[in-house]
Amino acid sequence: MGAGDSLGAALARRFASEGMTVCIARRNAEQLQPLVDEIREAGGTVHAFGCDARKEEQVVALFGQIEKEIGPLAIVVFNIGANIQFNVRETTAQKYYKVWEMACFAGFLTGREAARYMAPRGQGTIFFTGATASIRGAEGFCAFAGAKHGLRSLAQSMAREFGKQGLHIVHPVIDGPIDTPFVRERFPELVAERPADGLLAPDDIADTYWFLHTQKRSAWTFELDIRPFLEVVTNF
Amino acid sequence: MGAGDSLGAALARRFASEGMTVCIARRNAEQLQPLVDEIREAGGTVHAFGCDARKEEQVVALFGQIEKEIGPLAIVVFNIGANIQFNVRETTAQKYYKVWEMACFAGFLTGREAARYMAPRGQGTIFFTGATASIRGAEGFCAFAGAKHGLRSLAQSMAREFGKQGLHIVHPVIDGPIDTPFVRERFPELVAERPADGLLAPDDIADTYWFLHTQKRSAWTFELDIRPFLEVVTNF
Amino acid sequence: MGAGDSLGAALARRFASEGMTVCIARRNAEQLQPLVDEIREAGGTVHAFGCDARKEEQVVALFGQIEKEIGPLAIVVFNIGANIQFNVRETTAQKYYKVWEMACFAGFLTGREAARYMAPRGQGTIFFTGATASIRGAEGFCAFAGAKHGLRSLAQSMAREFGKQGLHIVHPVIDGPIDTPFVRERFPELVAERPADGLLAPDDIADTYWFLHTQKRSAWTFELDIRPFLEVVTNF
Amino acid sequence: MGAGDSLGAALARRFASEGMTVCIARRNAEQLQPLVDEIREAGGTVHAFGCDARKEEQVVALFGQIEKEIGPLAIVVFNIGANIQFNVRETTAQKYYKVWEMACFAGFLTGREAARYMAPRGQGTIFFTGATASIRGAEGFCAFAGAKHGLRSLAQSMAREFGKQGLHIVHPVIDGPIDTPFVRERFPELVAERPADGLLAPDDIADTYWFLHTQKRSAWTFELDIRPFLEVVTNF
Repeated sequence: MGAGDSLGAALARRFASEGMTVCIARRNAEQLQPLVDEIREAGGTVHAFGCDARKEEQVVALFGQIEKEIGPLAIVVFNIGANIQFNVRETTAQKYYKVWEMACFAGFLTGREAARYMAPRGQGTIFFTGATASIRGAEGFCAFAGAKHGLRSLAQSMAREFGKQGLHIVHPVIDGPIDTPFVRERFPELVAERPADGLLAPDDIADTYWFLHTQKRSAWTFELDIRPFLEVVTNF
Repeated sequence: MGAGDSLGAALARRFASEGMTVCIARRNAEQLQPLVDEIREAGGTVHAFGCDARKEEQVVALFGQIEKEIGPLAIVVFNIGANIQFNVRETTAQKYYKVWEMACFAGFLTGREAARYMAPRGQGTIFFTGATASIRGAEGFCAFAGAKHGLRSLAQSMAREFGKQGLHIVHPVIDGPIDTPFVRERFPELVAERPADGLLAPDDIADTYWFLHTQKRSAWTFELDIRPFLEVVTNF
Repeated sequence: MGAGDSLGAALARRFASEGMTVCIARRNAEQLQPLVDEIREAGGTVHAFGCDARKEEQVVALFGQIEKEIGPLAIVVFNIGANIQFNVRETTAQKYYKVWEMACFAGFLTGREAARYMAPRGQGTIFFTGATASIRGAEGFCAFAGAKHGLRSLAQSMAREFGKQGLHIVHPVIDGPIDTPFVRERFPELVAERPADGLLAPDDIADTYWFLHTQKRSAWTFELDIRPFLEVVTNF
Repeated sequence: MGAGDSLGAALARRFASEGMTVCIARRNAEQLQPLVDEIREAGGTVHAFGCDARKEEQVVALFGQIEKEIGPLAIVVFNIGANIQFNVRETTAQKYYKVWEMACFAGFLTGREAARYMAPRGQGTIFFTGATASIRGAEGFCAFAGAKHGLRSLAQSMAREFGKQGLHIVHPVIDGPIDTPFVRERFPELVAERPADGLLAPDDIADTYWFLHTQKRSAWTFELDIRPFLEVVTNF
């Protein structure tokens, strides 16, 4: 859920390359076509869906359709962000609400519907992608940090409720700039001063997501940071 | 904002007893009458307001009215909770939203309007009352914990933005059962097995809020736990 | 324990001004004379002791002497730091050990002896003064941060063991530069760019210690940050 | 460093099975013979060393010998615990010191010597094995928790100093009972009530250590929890 940015695409490619049937969703399904083509050309199996993850009925319908027509879900990734920057006094009520709706409320709907199918089967992995803002409230990011804190709390509540039922809930904290065209354009100095592997490579992040899915349930990880070697390590 | 539960009432009484003019607000102003009477009988000055703190225009209007008709705000307390318990699969989208709207979104509106008046003056104290659920996501409390995590993040973002401008933002974490009729009725065994001071006394919590307001800005506190001596100490 | 730096002196003055008999200790008792004179001139009662807080027999003897000759301890403050800076490869085993011995091991001896007398009486306050390094391991401070993390952990373990027995254990986290001659000399630019109350004033910190001692046990605080308004708020 | 308990042995077997030459060390080298035999029978290459990790000269000598006679270190694991339980008043100064010396000071010596060789080469992975007590101070574990907090802080300081130089420092937090003969004997009820994979299997933990070593440096993890699916997820 939330395929299309570079991490979502990398995860889809990686899961497909491991032989899984991949279902990718975003609000506008047409924008998924390049990713669909790429995965198919590499020999993978992929289905694309249009879904507004903020709408309960659409999320319910999407999970129902996949489970009925494609097969039982093994991994669900909630990967929608909404990283906008405003000072508190410039943050309108509508902006604050919209950011929460995309980055937290949609995660609740996605996680709940995933658990509805997975919990009775006693297996499945659910990822909620976190960020630096999940851990620290930053100046200028009150809406985004608020939503990400809420999403982290959801992940933790779900781990407590569903972990003992056999669901692996994971909250990776992506702490650093991901190597995307957007970052390269917006922060040219940062990019210039770092070596090629000084930004987070989406494929390298995907390695960790895949590994976490393969962990045996005797030794699961709920939370971990993922950051470039050049980034300063901070606490959770 | 959110006077009426026992902590809100204790804070209003305490601030009034320190000689402040107290403005108390909740959705239904009529329910504030007993508190108004109590404060006035004790010689305090108090004004009661009806305000649905989830409605931007009502919050904006309330702050405008107080600043215009009563005087400059010195302390603002956001004290609305919504501590309901549901498993994830039983939490409807509407419940999840309502809890967030009351316990987090209303806090954003309150904090933003408070800062709008206080920041240009370079002084003022804003309290956001936290709870155990602000720190840890618990099974059965995904909606409440999500909202409280969001509120904590808001407090931290505001401290970073407005602290250097002279506003004292505080996030007290109330970690334990408050001594209320509701708690006494719902958890009779817990109450029976503890001594009288084994529950959080609202007046004792109010002592700490008042002290925090009096801290000199060379040595401010942003966050602290408040819990009965019998409660197990845990980390932030 | 560890009187002599500016915070220790401020605490001694403040407790004396509240009418308490103050016992101050440091390795070299003669260096305490100016503080003794100052407190006595202000009308306070004070006793000075030489004690190497790293030596078990000296700490045991000091507590025994005070309890026997002066009176029952009501407040104990462990306030010894050892804030030295070295890169890891330049930190000799001896340096690493010495820092821990002063800033953590001495705290264990002090806390244990304090609890030995206070726990049977079911009352008393024990402060362990923390620092930014108690919360985050910083580059160049591996020895100091290690010791301060150990001290924080000790405070938390003691709160869990002795809180329910009526001892109030507190770990204030002093997060920012204290206004001392040392800081003024070593960081002149920092001092120049801040207003007078942009550094932590020892007397203002002492206000908070005193308040914490007066908290009712229905609503105790274990941990809180204390920092100048200009300092960036971070998490625990 | 600290091979011999079940996790240390599992790590040695796993690294050997990946084709690495494994050097295992503990105080008494003779006790390593069964593990040496096991690894060799499985076709692995292994060297055993006697080393008291609390003695600076022995640690310095061990690293010098390995680098000179065997080859450049690629992975170093510090895996010594000292999980003893005493109430604060029963914890002698000697016990408190011994636990710290084994579980923290020895980690400092090991980490420092590892970095001395690895940092100039700009690569290498250093693991410091953490535990629940690294994160929370528990009643009855003041010595152990103090040492583990110190070790975590060391790992964080080293990550900040050496991460940007290309060293991957990792602090896995093992949060739950490891499946060992000791645990099976000491907590028979716990073992009886859990399924076979309800305890941490050392080989499954080793999977995660190995994966972390293979992470690309664009996307490194510093800290993560590892716990059985039945264990309650808590915060860092």
